[in-house]
Amino acid sequence: MTFALTPDQPLRFGANYTPATEWMHSWLSFNPDNVRRDFAGLAELGLDHVRLFPLWTVLQPNRTLIRQEAIDDVHTVVDIAAEFGMDASVDVVQGHLSSFDFIPSWLFTWHDKNMFTHPQALSGQVELVSALGRSLAGASNFLGFTLGNETNQFSAKNHPSPWPVTPDEAGSWLTALLDAAERSAPGFPHVHSEYDAAWYMDGHGFTPAHAARLGAMTTVHSWIFNGTAQRYGGRSVASDRHAEYMIEMARGFATQPDRPIWLQEIGAPANCLTPEETPDFLEATVRSAVRTENLWGVTWWCSHDVSRELADYPELEYTLGLLDNGGGVKPIGQRFAEIIPELRQRRPAPARNVGIVIPVDENEIPVSRGAMSPGGAIFQAWVDACAEGIDPAIVTSKDAENPAALAARGITELIRPMLNATVVEEYSSNNTVVEDTA
Amino acid sequence: MTFALTPDQPLRFGANYTPATEWMHSWLSFNPDNVRRDFAGLAELGLDHVRLFPLWTVLQPNRTLIRQEAIDDVHTVVDIAAEFGMDASVDVVQGHLSSFDFIPSWLFTWHDKNMFTHPQALSGQVELVSALGRSLAGASNFLGFTLGNETNQFSAKNHPSPWPVTPDEAGSWLTALLDAAERSAPGFPHVHSEYDAAWYMDGHGFTPAHAARLGAMTTVHSWIFNGTAQRYGGRSVASDRHAEYMIEMARGFATQPDRPIWLQEIGAPANCLTPEETPDFLEATVRSAVRTENLWGVTWWCSHDVSRELADYPELEYTLGLLDNGGGVKPIGQRFAEIIPELRQRRPAPARNVGIVIPVDENEIPVSRGAMSPGGAIFQAWVDACAEGIDPAIVTSKDAENPAALAARGITELIRPMLNATVVEEYSSNNTVVEDTA
Repeated sequence: MTFALTPDQPLRFGANYTPATEWMHSWLSFNPDNVRRDFAGLAELGLDHVRLFPLWTVLQPNRTLIRQEAIDDVHTVVDIAAEFGMDASVDVVQGHLSSFDFIPSWLFTWHDKNMFTHPQALSGQVELVSALGRSLAGASNFLGFTLGNETNQFSAKNHPSPWPVTPDEAGSWLTALLDAAERSAPGFPHVHSEYDAAWYMDGHGFTPAHAARLGAMTTVHSWIFNGTAQRYGGRSVASDRHAEYMIEMARGFATQPDRPIWLQEIGAPANCLTPEETPDFLEATVRSAVRTENLWGVTWWCSHDVSRELADYPELEYTLGLLDNGGGVKPIGQRFAEIIPELRQRRPAPARNVGIVIPVDENEIPVSRGAMSPGGAIFQAWVDACAEGIDPAIVTSKDAENPAALAARGITELIRPMLNATVVEEYSSNNTVVEDTA
Repeated sequence: MTFALTPDQPLRFGANYTPATEWMHSWLSFNPDNVRRDFAGLAELGLDHVRLFPLWTVLQPNRTLIRQEAIDDVHTVVDIAAEFGMDASVDVVQGHLSSFDFIPSWLFTWHDKNMFTHPQALSGQVELVSALGRSLAGASNFLGFTLGNETNQFSAKNHPSPWPVTPDEAGSWLTALLDAAERSAPGFPHVHSEYDAAWYMDGHGFTPAHAARLGAMTTVHSWIFNGTAQRYGGRSVASDRHAEYMIEMARGFATQPDRPIWLQEIGAPANCLTPEETPDFLEATVRSAVRTENLWGVTWWCSHDVSRELADYPELEYTLGLLDNGGGVKPIGQRFAEIIPELRQRRPAPARNVGIVIPVDENEIPVSRGAMSPGGAIFQAWVDACAEGIDPAIVTSKDAENPAALAARGITELIRPMLNATVVEEYSSNNTVVEDTA
C-alpha cells in the first residue's frame, strides 16, 4: 500500500506522550484517570494526536508471554485519546527512551541475542507486533505503529552492548516487522524511526534509503544537541532549520515522489537553549518545517516534563515538556498552541530549484555520512545556501545524473560540496550521554 | 543480634516459590487467587515455609521510584502464606533467577553502574531494602530477607557483563544491605545467598568467610550440575552428600560456633538425574543434610515446574518442581511429603572427629578454591572419607593450628589434602549456560 496525503488534509500537530506520573513506568501501574488528566491538558493545547510508548519489558517479559493485560492497557490509552478527539500512534518495540534501555531478560546477558538478526529474537518481535496489531486494528483513531523509538541505537557502534547489523540485515528486520504490522493491522500507515546516526554516522547499518523508502512515511527525529547547536548556536539558522534539513534529505532519498514525511520528534533541549529561547525555537523550527512538501505533521518531544522525583535522566530530559510535570502550560506549550490554528491548513510549499548533491555509492549509501552531519561539507553547504536566502533541495548523486529526476522536482541548479573541504570528527552523538553525578 | 536455634526447634521444610502461572512475571499481573491455588498445593505437602522472589525491575523501575503497589503485592503474598500456615522468606534484590537477569534500566547499558560498589547503586538498593523492610516488619510469618538470589553471579568473571568486586567491596555491599534490613525490619534473621563460586572459584570477590559470617545464618545453595554429577555420577555419594559437604564447609568458616545453616536451595536437575532417580536423590540428600548440626531447614528448588508455554529457559528448569505446572504432586514431591514428618524433629547429629583441612591465607581466603570444587583435592578427600564410613568435618588451616578450636568441635584427627595432587580445571559452572536452539 502506498500512503499519500491529499492537498486538503490538514497538517497534524501532536506530542510524544511522557506520562506526568511515573513516566513510562506508569505502564506497570496503569491508571486511566492519570492518562485522562494528561490528555485533557494536551487537547487543551489544540493537539490532534499523541505518540505512545508502551514498554517492551511489560508487553513481552518472556519471548512467548505477550501479556493480554498490557495489550489491553495500550488499547485503553488509545481509546482515552479518542475521548479527547485525538488520534494515537503506538511504538511497539520499546526499546530505548530518554537514555534508558528496556530490554526483556530473554535478550540480554546470558540470553544475549542480536534483536535484529537472531531468528528467535525476530520471531518474538513479529509475534509482539502481530498481537498488538490485532488488538489495535479496530481502533478508529489508531495512527499505526512505529516499530520502536530510535531502535537503531541498539546497533550503533557506540552503544555499550551493540547488536551490529549490515544494511541488508537492518532492511530485513524493518521489512519483517513492517510486514507483520500490515498483516495484523492492515491499512494503517506503519512506520519506523531512527535517531540521526542513519544520516550522520558512517558505517551505520540503518541507512537513509531505509528511512526514506520503507514504511508508509519517513519519520524525522531532529535533535540540535547532535553538534548543530554546539557548532552553530542554539538559535542559529542551522539549528532552527535542522529539522527542515533532515526533511529535505529524506526527500532526496525517497523513491516515491509524494511520500509523506513526519517530523516525529523535535524538541528544545536545555543544554542548547535557554528556557527563554525555547518558544522562539519552537516557532522557528515548526514554521520552517511546514514550508516543506508532503509533511504529514509535527509531533513535539514531549508532552510533560519528567518529574524531578525520578532520578538519573540526563538533565535536559527534565525540561522538554510542553506542559510542566504538574500539567501547567509552559511558555513553549503556549506558543505551540498559538501557532497551530494558523498552520494547520496546508499552504503551497516554496519551490526548491537548487539541489545540494549527496554523493552515494552503488548501493545508494552516502559516500560520507560525516559530510552530512553538523559541520560537514554538505551540512555547511545547506547552511550557506540558507544564508543566501535559498530554500535548498537535497539530491543524491545518482539522481543528479538523471535529468528527468531533476526536472520532476524542478531542480535547475546543483551545488556539489567537496567532501574533503572540512574535517568532520567521527559522529557519535545521541541523547544518551549520562552524567555521573556520584 | 546473634541468631541461634533451640534444641526443640523443629527443622523447617519448604520450597522456593516458582509461580505456576507466568512464573516470576506474575508480579506484573498480580493475582492473589493464583497464589492461593499454588500455596494450597505446597501446604498439602506439609511444607512450613516458602521463599519468595519479587522482581527488582517491578519493585524499583527507577532508582527513586519504589512502587508501593509492588511492595503491597509482596506483603499480600506473605499474608497468603500465613493463610496456609506457612512462613515466608523474601528475596529483595532480584536480580538473577533461572538464567534470567532482571536489572533495572537505571543500572545497565547507558546507565551501567557496578551494583556492588557504585554509591548511587548502593544507596538505591538500601532504599529498596528499607522500604520493603518497613512493610514486612509487621508480618508475623515473615522469615526475613535474603538480599537476593545468588547475586554474586553478577560479579563473576564469566558473567557476560560482570561487575567485579574485591572481597572488601563484597563485604561492604553485604554489610550495608544487611544493616538496612535490620534497621527496617529488626529482629528477623536476614541473610544473603551466593551461588557456589564463593566456595569454588578462585579470585571470586564473595568468599567463604562472607558466606559463613555475615547475616543471621549461612545459606547453602547446592547444585550437583556444578561438575559433581558429571564427574562422580548423579546418584553418587559425592552428589547425594554435596549439600552436606557445603554445609560442613560453611561450619568450617564460621566464627559463631552455633551459627545456623540453611540449606536454602537444593534441587534435582534433569541434566544429571533421570526422572526416576529424583525421589531417591531428594531423600538421600535431605537425610544427609539433616545429620548436620544447627541446620535451620531445607528449602527445595522449586515449588512448580516452569510452564512449557514459556520459552528460553535452560531445559532443566522445566522439571525442577515438587509439583507439576498444573499443581499435581510429582513423585519427588510425594517423597518429600513422606519424609518430612519423620525428619521435622531434631535428632543429635553424629560426631565429626576427622577434620579435612582447607588451607587459607592471612585473610582466611582459601589458597585454592579450585581444590574445594568438584574433583579438587579437598573435595576428593571428602568423598574418600565418606567412602570409608567417616562423617568428616571441615576446618580451616588457621583453626587447624588452634588446639582449643579443634577441641571445641571434637576434632581429633586431621586430613591435609595435597593441593597439587589433582589438576582442577578452572571453575566456572553455574546454572546459566543457555543452549541456543535457533
